[in-house]
Order: sequence, then C-alpha cells, then structure tokens
Amino acid sequence: MYSFRNDYSEGAHPVVLQALTDTNLEQTSGYGTDPYCAEAAQLIRDLCKAPEADVHFLVGGTQTNLLAITSYLASYEAVIAAHTGHVNVHETGAIEATGHKVCTAYAPDGKLTPSLVESVVNGHSSEHMVAPKMVYISDSTEIGTLYTKAELVALRECCDKHGLLLFLDGARLGSAFTSPDNDLTLPDLAALTDMFYIGGTKNGALFGEALVLNSPNAHFRWHMKQRGAMLAKGRLLGVQFKALLTDNLYFDIAKHANDMAYRLRDGMAALGYEFPVPSPTNQQFPVLPNDIAAKLEAMGYVFEAQEAVDENNTIVRFVTSWATPVEAVDQFLKDLAACK
Amino acid sequence: MYSFRNDYSEGAHPVVLQALTDTNLEQTSGYGTDPYCAEAAQLIRDLCKAPEADVHFLVGGTQTNLLAITSYLASYEAVIAAHTGHVNVHETGAIEATGHKVCTAYAPDGKLTPSLVESVVNGHSSEHMVAPKMVYISDSTEIGTLYTKAELVALRECCDKHGLLLFLDGARLGSAFTSPDNDLTLPDLAALTDMFYIGGTKNGALFGEALVLNSPNAHFRWHMKQRGAMLAKGRLLGVQFKALLTDNLYFDIAKHANDMAYRLRDGMAALGYEFPVPSPTNQQFPVLPNDIAAKLEAMGYVFEAQEAVDENNTIVRFVTSWATPVEAVDQFLKDLAACK
Amino acid sequence: MYSFRNDYSEGAHPVVLQALTDTNLEQTSGYGTDPYCAEAAQLIRDLCKAPEADVHFLVGGTQTNLLAITSYLASYEAVIAAHTGHVNVHETGAIEATGHKVCTAYAPDGKLTPSLVESVVNGHSSEHMVAPKMVYISDSTEIGTLYTKAELVALRECCDKHGLLLFLDGARLGSAFTSPDNDLTLPDLAALTDMFYIGGTKNGALFGEALVLNSPNAHFRWHMKQRGAMLAKGRLLGVQFKALLTDNLYFDIAKHANDMAYRLRDGMAALGYEFPVPSPTNQQFPVLPNDIAAKLEAMGYVFEAQEAVDENNTIVRFVTSWATPVEAVDQFLKDLAACK
Amino acid sequence: MYSFRNDYSEGAHPVVLQALTDTNLEQTSGYGTDPYCAEAAQLIRDLCKAPEADVHFLVGGTQTNLLAITSYLASYEAVIAAHTGHVNVHETGAIEATGHKVCTAYAPDGKLTPSLVESVVNGHSSEHMVAPKMVYISDSTEIGTLYTKAELVALRECCDKHGLLLFLDGARLGSAFTSPDNDLTLPDLAALTDMFYIGGTKNGALFGEALVLNSPNAHFRWHMKQRGAMLAKGRLLGVQFKALLTDNLYFDIAKHANDMAYRLRDGMAALGYEFPVPSPTNQQFPVLPNDIAAKLEAMGYVFEAQEAVDENNTIVRFVTSWATPVEAVDQFLKDLAACK
Repeated sequence: MYSFRNDYSEGAHPVVLQALTDTNLEQTSGYGTDPYCAEAAQLIRDLCKAPEADVHFLVGGTQTNLLAITSYLASYEAVIAAHTGHVNVHETGAIEATGHKVCTAYAPDGKLTPSLVESVVNGHSSEHMVAPKMVYISDSTEIGTLYTKAELVALRECCDKHGLLLFLDGARLGSAFTSPDNDLTLPDLAALTDMFYIGGTKNGALFGEALVLNSPNAHFRWHMKQRGAMLAKGRLLGVQFKALLTDNLYFDIAKHANDMAYRLRDGMAALGYEFPVPSPTNQQFPVLPNDIAAKLEAMGYVFEAQEAVDENNTIVRFVTSWATPVEAVDQFLKDLAACK
Repeated sequence: MYSFRNDYSEGAHPVVLQALTDTNLEQTSGYGTDPYCAEAAQLIRDLCKAPEADVHFLVGGTQTNLLAITSYLASYEAVIAAHTGHVNVHETGAIEATGHKVCTAYAPDGKLTPSLVESVVNGHSSEHMVAPKMVYISDSTEIGTLYTKAELVALRECCDKHGLLLFLDGARLGSAFTSPDNDLTLPDLAALTDMFYIGGTKNGALFGEALVLNSPNAHFRWHMKQRGAMLAKGRLLGVQFKALLTDNLYFDIAKHANDMAYRLRDGMAALGYEFPVPSPTNQQFPVLPNDIAAKLEAMGYVFEAQEAVDENNTIVRFVTSWATPVEAVDQFLKDLAACK
Repeated sequence: MYSFRNDYSEGAHPVVLQALTDTNLEQTSGYGTDPYCAEAAQLIRDLCKAPEADVHFLVGGTQTNLLAITSYLASYEAVIAAHTGHVNVHETGAIEATGHKVCTAYAPDGKLTPSLVESVVNGHSSEHMVAPKMVYISDSTEIGTLYTKAELVALRECCDKHGLLLFLDGARLGSAFTSPDNDLTLPDLAALTDMFYIGGTKNGALFGEALVLNSPNAHFRWHMKQRGAMLAKGRLLGVQFKALLTDNLYFDIAKHANDMAYRLRDGMAALGYEFPVPSPTNQQFPVLPNDIAAKLEAMGYVFEAQEAVDENNTIVRFVTSWATPVEAVDQFLKDLAACK
Repeated sequence: MYSFRNDYSEGAHPVVLQALTDTNLEQTSGYGTDPYCAEAAQLIRDLCKAPEADVHFLVGGTQTNLLAITSYLASYEAVIAAHTGHVNVHETGAIEATGHKVCTAYAPDGKLTPSLVESVVNGHSSEHMVAPKMVYISDSTEIGTLYTKAELVALRECCDKHGLLLFLDGARLGSAFTSPDNDLTLPDLAALTDMFYIGGTKNGALFGEALVLNSPNAHFRWHMKQRGAMLAKGRLLGVQFKALLTDNLYFDIAKHANDMAYRLRDGMAALGYEFPVPSPTNQQFPVLPNDIAAKLEAMGYVFEAQEAVDENNTIVRFVTSWATPVEAVDQFLKDLAACK
C-alpha cells in the first residue's frame, strides 16, 4: 500500500525538518523580518541572477495566487487563465472574492499561447467589459505539461505587446525544472515573467511558497497582512527555503520525484497501460480499467480519478514526490502486474 | 539580552516539535481531513463539553478572525469591536477587505460591555446604516485585561436580546485562562459564545489557531479555501494541537508565561516602576524613562514602545512566553537595577 | 438618417414623461417609500398574480443584476450563465466585484438548458470549487432569442433538483412577451423563477427596472443602499412604472418595437439580405456587405457591428424601439435599396 | 402642512424638467457619450477654470462617494472622515463593501482639521494597519456647517504633507456656496481638492451629481460600469446639469433654499426657540419640546428628530429647498406660534 494521491502527503524533507529543529529556540523578529528570510531571499535573488527582485514567503498556493493577482490589478482588471488553470477551477473563487474576473481560454494541453491570450484580449474592447491585465500560467501545468523557453519568450512578447503582466505559478516548479524536457532556468523566469513562485509545499517543505516579484510592488506586505497571509513566525519560511536552496537540495529531491514518476510510467506502459496525455513531470495520467482500479484501492493504493474514458475505464492521476521510495513504486508495479 | 517583544519569537514547544518529527514521514490525506485533525478536534470537543461543536484549524490569527467574521455575516452586516480591538487596528483592514464594517466603541480597558454594545446597536436603525450582527471580543484583550464569567454572561444576554453573534478571539487564551483572576472555562466559552478560538501561535505551536464553532456553518471549509486558509498539509495543525492539548501542556506552559510576567512585574515594581494599567496576564505595561529604555536596548533587550507618557517617559510592553527562562527575567531585573 | 443602435436612444414615452410632469411638485417621502412606488408594486403583484411578491425599483440593468445576484449568494456561491450572458460579458466584472464567480456554459443560441446547467453543477463537487447556486437567464436573450414556457418549466425543475435559484433578466421582457413566438406570462415568471425583472429602460421609461422577488429577502433594501442603488427621489421609478403598467402601455409599445423590427427584417429579406440567427424580437442581426454598411453610415444610419463573417461581410445589429417611427424604417429600406 | 424632511421631496426645478421635455425625443448615444454631457462637462470646466478637469455624471450621492473613493485607493488604503461623515454613518457600509476602511476622527462640528487628520495618520505606521490615503469632507457638512477657504487651504497643505488625496462631497454645495458665511468658489475647489462633486439631487435635479476629477483617473468609466453606475440614457444627466448651470440657476435656487431656512430660523428664534448648533445653510436644528413637535406633526408638518436633549425636548432637523414656498414657511411659523 502507498498513496500516490499527491505530493504533499508527508511532512518535510528531513533536512528541512532538521533546520527547523536546529533553530527552534532562537528568538527572531516576526512576520518575515528575520535574518533567515533575508538569507533565503538573497539565495533566491542569486539563483535568479536578479539582484533587484523582491522576494516574499507565503504559506500556500491559493494564498500566493490571490495575492500575486489582486495586489497588481485594479478592480476592473482581469486575469487570463487556461480553462484548467488552478485559479479558475480549484480555488473556490478566491480570485473573484478579491473582486477580479478570471477570463478563460480553452487550452487542451493546459498551456496558454499568444494566440489564446490574444483571443481574450481582442474580445475586451470597452468600458463595458473587464480589462485583461495579467496572464496566469503554471509550470508544470495542472495536467503535468511544461512550457519551453521559446513558448515563454513568445508569451512575454505577447504580454509586452498588450500591456499585460505575466505571472507563473510554480507550485510544481521543482518537477518542471528537473524534467528532461525542460529548457527553462530561474534566471529565465526572473527575466521573462513579472512574478513567479518557487513552490515548497509540493517539494519538501512543511509548507511555503517563495514569491519572486520582478515588477515592483512597494506595499505587497500590506496586501499580505490584509489577506491574513503574514505568518507570525515568518522565519519558519525562511529557514525552510534556506535549507531547500542550499546545495541544490530543492532540485535534487524534485528530480527524485520525477524519476519515480518515470519508473512508474515505464513500468505501467510495459504492462500495457496507456497514457493518453504524455507528462514529463511527477504527475502521470494512465487509463485504468475500473475493476483494476478497485483492486488496487482494496490493496491500499491511493490515487485520484481524473476523468471517465468510458463506462469501464477511467483516466487516473498518480503523483510521486521527494518522499516516494523506489520500493513503493516497484511493489506497486508488482501488485499491478498481479491484478491482470 | 533577551527579547520581550512578543510571545512568538521562538519556534514551537519541544513536545510539539517532537510530535511533528515523529509523524513527519507518515502519509495522510490533505487539507485537514486526516486523523490527527480529527483527534485534536475531538480532544477540543471533550475539553469544551461540546459534542456538537465544529472545530477548524487555521494557520494564524488574522486569517481566523476574518473567516469567523465574514463566514457568518451578510454583506450589509457589521461587527462591533472595542476601539483597541485587533480586528479594528492591527489587521490592515482585513475585515473591510471582506466587505464588512467594524463598528467601534471606546473601551478604555479593552473590554466591551452590554452598555457599549447597545450604544452601537441603538445607533443603527435603518437600511441607511449597516446592521450590527456580531460582537468581537478578545480574552485576554489587546491590553492584557480579562473577561470574568459574569461579564461574559452579561454580554451573551445582551447578544441574545439584540440578535447578535458573540465571537471571542482567544489568541492569548492560554495566558487568560491561567491567570489567577480568571474564572472562565472552555465549557463556558462553548456555552456562552457562538465561536471562539484557542490560540496556538502565541502559546507553543509553530503556528495555528483552533476555531470552535458553536453555531453551525455548513460551508465553513468553502470559506477557508476561498480565503487561501486551507493548509495543504493540514495535519500539521492537528498534530500540534493534539500535542498541546494532551496532559494539560497548553495550560501548563501558558501558566509559565504568566509566572514569568508576574516575576518581571513584581521585580520592576520593587524597583519603583509603575504599571498604570494593571494586567493579570503575560503582557505587562510599565512606564520606563526614555533614557533607561535606551540603555536596556543597548544591552540587547527588546520590547515595544506603546504610548508616550510625556517627553521623558514611555509606556512600554513586555511580553513573556512559554519559552521565557527564569534566568532571562532575573538577569533583566539585575540589569535594570544597575541602570538606575 | 436614424439610429438603430439600441432601444434607449430617446428619452421616455410621452405618457411616462407626462406622469413625471404631473407629479413633479408633489412632496413625497424618499428612497421608494412613497405612494407611487407602493401603487406600482401593487400593480405588478396583480399582473403577476403574486400577492406575496416583493417588488423593488432600480435605476439600471447592471445594478439590478448585481443586486439580485449578490443579495442571494454566500461568498463561495456562484451564478451560472450562458457564455453570452450579459453578466458574463458586458458588465465590467460587476458580479465578480461583489465577490462571486460567473460559471459559464457555451450556449450558441444564448439560452441555457437543463443539460448545460447540469454540466456546470456536476463539475463542482467539493470545497475546492465554488458552489453554483443560481442560474441567470435573459428573456429575450442577448441575441434576441426567446424562452418557451416548456423550456422555463424544465429549467425550474432542474433548479429544484439541484437546489438552485432561477433569475430571469427581463431588460427586454416587453419585446419578448409581445413576440408571436412567446407563450410565457407574468404569472408564469412569478411561479417559475425566484426573481425576475421587468425592464423599463429599454421600453419607454427614462430609466428603471422593476425587480420582482418571489423568494423572500428581508434585507434587500440594505443591499440596495450599500451598492448605491437607492434612488433619493425613488418615486420617479414608481411614477414611471405606474404609467407603463396602466392600460397595457408597456406591452403596446413593446409590440410596436417588435413590429418595426419585423418590418425592417422583412424589408431587408425582400432585398436579399440574410439573417443567420433568426430573432423574433426587436433586435435583428442581418449580414451586410461592408461597403453597403459604410454607405449607410455615411447617410447617418447608426447600427453596431456584431461579428465579422468574412473580410467583406459583417453581421450587424439593428434595434428598434417604442420610439421608432414607421417612416424611419421605410426610408431606411428605400435608402438600402438604393445602395445596391 | 408641509414637509421639511429633506431637500429632495419634490421632483425637478421646472426649468430642468422643461429641458428634459424639450430633448425627450432626440436620439443620442448612450452612457454619457452624448453632446449634452459634453456640453455640461465643458460648462463645469469653465466655471471651475479647470480646463483639464475630468467630469463624470452620476445618479446619486452614495454611488458617487463609493466610486470616488474606491477608484483612487488600493485595497489596503483607507479614507479618513469625520465621525458624522456620510460615508461613515449613512451609506450602509458602501465604502467597506468595496473593501476599504473608513478611519474616523471625532469632529463635533462635522468638520475635519489638519490636526484631526494627523491624529489618524500618525496612528497608522506599519503594514499591520491600513494606510490612510484620502480625506473625505462635505461642504456643507452633515450638520449644516461650512468650510472656509482658509480651512480648506490648511487641509490641502496637510494632505500634501502626508501624501493624501482630498475629496469634497458637495451633495449640498449649492446651499454651502450661497451662504453669507461662504468664501469658497468653484475654482477654489478645483485647485484645492483632488475631486469634488456638485450635487444635483438636493438642488433642483430629478437626480444627479457632477463629479469633478482634478487628479487623473483614466479608467474611471470602467469603475462606473462595474458598480452599476453608468446610466444607459446618460444624456439625462447632461441635460439637467446644462440647465442648472446655465444663467446661474443652480446658485439662484440654492440661495432661495437658504433664504427660506433663515426665514424659518429667524421666525423660530423670535418665538424663543433655540438652535444649539448654528447653521448657515439650508438645514436648521432647533430644539422643540416634544409636545409641540407632536402637535406640529398632527397638523401635517414633517421633520426629523435628530437627537434627544432630555426627556421633554428634542433637537429636530428642518430642511428647506429650492421648492419651499415662502408661504409654507410663514404658515408654519403662524401655526408654531399658535402651538405655544
């Protein structure tokens, strides 16, 4: 038995937890004004080759998304997202609750393109409509796909042409950047986006997202506090990100998550299972016959149904993480083989 | 040197941190649907003798306040608070950002009374004004004072008379309940308020507040998610509150914080310092001559200026916590004596 | 020359203006608490055979839509609309500005069906998503189509099944109800919807919409005031609706608008112009060659481009009103014939 | 019998109504893009000697206040008002519903001073508090008092010093500017405020407020539409303001309102009634014995109770308007004399 439900089923990577333990009884000032947050922010600026970037640490993804969006938009401005975008589907209207419309474009592979963005922009021509002002993308996307550097450059050009901000949700940036298909770097993101974040929750932290603002926003901390997003013991975020970003830990453990995903994918493919939407990251979407799925669940395996294919088959989602043992994958493949 | 700036300068109580470490590699479901949250919630229901109460775990105080308020109010409804109320002063308009007015009454000791509440209610008589619907109080208050049971009963009766909900912010409930002046219990709060919370951030947790809803709110989790307040690894909150609420740890360590405050107060009083507003809890507000304050700061002591008394003297705030060592207090008193 | 741009290019029907003139110097109480609003509300209850209905008079359509929606929804609840729905496209995010998501379904003819509604409802299953709670439809729709009674009954059943409120935007209800294709009545709307409105702005009033609430909402006036929607001289709305609803004026003049639209349509059809989406109401959508359109505009005719067909042809919108003279239509047809 | 309840009990001044009648059947474009709005805006710019000012016409006061405030503030920014300020007390939380806190200062005469403004500004020092960004004042105030030019200059300097915007609510500007105590002019307001409005609703229009923006706000019309404040037949506002601002009508009729107020005040004073707060405008606040008030009401006189003086006496409010006949005042004074 093992849960492939998501990449946040466990606590923190042991190195991260140790860092929290080591610093536990130190006294620091609150709300992220401590030396650990300062160090972690500097590490990020260095990795991004972005000495001017403003870095803020937040607890979770929805919080980060709503803050990054609402703090940059006037009330009549809107954000453009893929129809599958996390901000459109999975945040209980968090963006709308801050007053902004999410304008969507139908993106079968979860990725926005300049042409999709322009189809939205061109449909908003007057004061009787919202004014699209930001493009929201995720890397990796909600369905495990990746942006290439060429694609991101093209989006940047499109945004510049139309006066749009470009925001990249990096909740799964670790998995994205350690995929063999990836050609993007942190300096690329700092140069090509107006803001992006390095997700910790889904890659080894107890919690935490590091939001990098490449466009200035002098009062971002006011927004944080107003939305209940300023952690009292803010240094917890600094300590964790410092640990993750030292000695390449963040990317090493993300690579492990990917490796486990590929091992799972290749093993299942060898058993004849199909993956209709190929994913180069730590989320894999095979088709399972419903009776096999039920048998696996009875054995204690956990994974989520994604979409019915027909009455007998379902696309399911398997997610691996920094914590997934090789043995768990191999045992699963053995058990799956035995199901047939 | 020691920081008396606040009660969240350190990390977690070692027992709490150990519980996080012990459970770190377990896999659980996310968002607070795990067994630890269930256990902690049951512990709280038991301690409150409130088998029907709904318990939700949140990361911080502002988040908890805004959720408790906005999830119970219609948009034209308002919350009544003391002018010093945390929701009125120290949350960057978080309540207003969810659309609700905070109606204030001037309460010199930080405590609302039925007569103050009625002065607000009576001033709101028509559809041209907001409709006050909730009373917000804190125990202990922002200035360290306490509600007695008789006072809380009177507020409950006032709320019932006027159709108001009663919300008690317990960010510092540990300190309040372990003060010699306290005569309230958790079952009292469950019986007398519509919702209250047990603050973890300021009493031994890394972070976390346990919100107890005595009035039903079936969609509270939708509100949580919408405001970015649903922690992915929600079990971190359950694990911490389970640890805190086992074997009376929560109250034992709060009593320590109070004891340190009283030791500090008595020692300073013995040195001739005055405390214009007496506080029976872990926040103490002595008057310091500015030159003495400067000397203490030069020695590395940290505390906050609260209010100027005159050009030479300032009311300052000292806060003790579960982590404050006796030695730190004693050394401070010695250093203070040497300042004179 | 004549403007077919919309049905609110002129002021009020002379009978309505006369009523305003006749009552101009009377003194009444403000904010809609006057006898004229009471009389007009009673007239509407009588016409709707809905003695319990609550009637509120508002100045404009966006105001009415946002109030009808936000006053019935909790913050995490959403409204379902056709992708062409006015609240989705043409109100600058007014619904989102009150905190609610608009969930859309692609409806080529501008009309929602139970199956479209259910496709949205079924996609929203947990606290990670908004909870659809209301269905928004327009009659006539934004593209001039009509709901039949059978269709409205089916939507009502669908709404009952899923616990949804049904809101009908009647900005162009006059045109809808006087179309030969219509089989709905005001009592039908009172029985089948939770709220609907009778549009005045687009049918003979200077301004004004009469919102009929069939589901109780005791504090609706608080919402009105909060959104700046309570007219000081509220009796202006009562006076106008009393005039419109006396002696069938409202429907007589709406029928005239439709008759002018059919005369225009039939005349253009006779000249060989095509109407890809047939409309039985006062909005008509012919295809015009761009050069013909330019000639007409040069003659002073006004109408709006709707959608390009190809590089030489455009679907345009012609709108007629209570004020459109037969002569204007005939002259236009003559001028159009001369263009060819 | 006569109603002194307010200055919007009647319809429009006959000249205004005639202008609406004269233009009734003209066709114009909608939403305030018509020639009448353009002409009225130019008249206002000329009267204000402010060729660069941006003028927008809105239907009512609450709508105007909420738009002027929310369109200039970021979500964490707040507006400062007197405790009696209309936006604080009489708008059902309209400002908070757009997300902004109203910070209040206790101003016994309804007027803010630099020192009151600074007391608020100085109390808001960090990201844990809202950031005051705008000062809201009314002229005449809610209790009938006036700002002098020296006072307004001082407020402007205070605002400049602290980076604050200054917004003047002119719902009763006509009465203010035609008071013998007034020394302000429209060019003064254009020079000294960032935005102000010329109130029509309370001085001869059916409805309407002309908002003058001296600080640029390129997307103000997006805000208008989003809040349901863009009148379809916007030219109704332009027609009315053009009529009011031609040949000094606006000020002539405001002066009449004031004259009637002074006649009432002087007559009552001669009968021995006291006016604890002197008002130089069209609102007068005498003390009436409750039995006298009851007799007057029985005769059909209407006025509002403001505040109890003791159990036998009440401060009441009498309001006169452009429409108040001399005969109504004189008859009232006769009837009052007979009451004694």
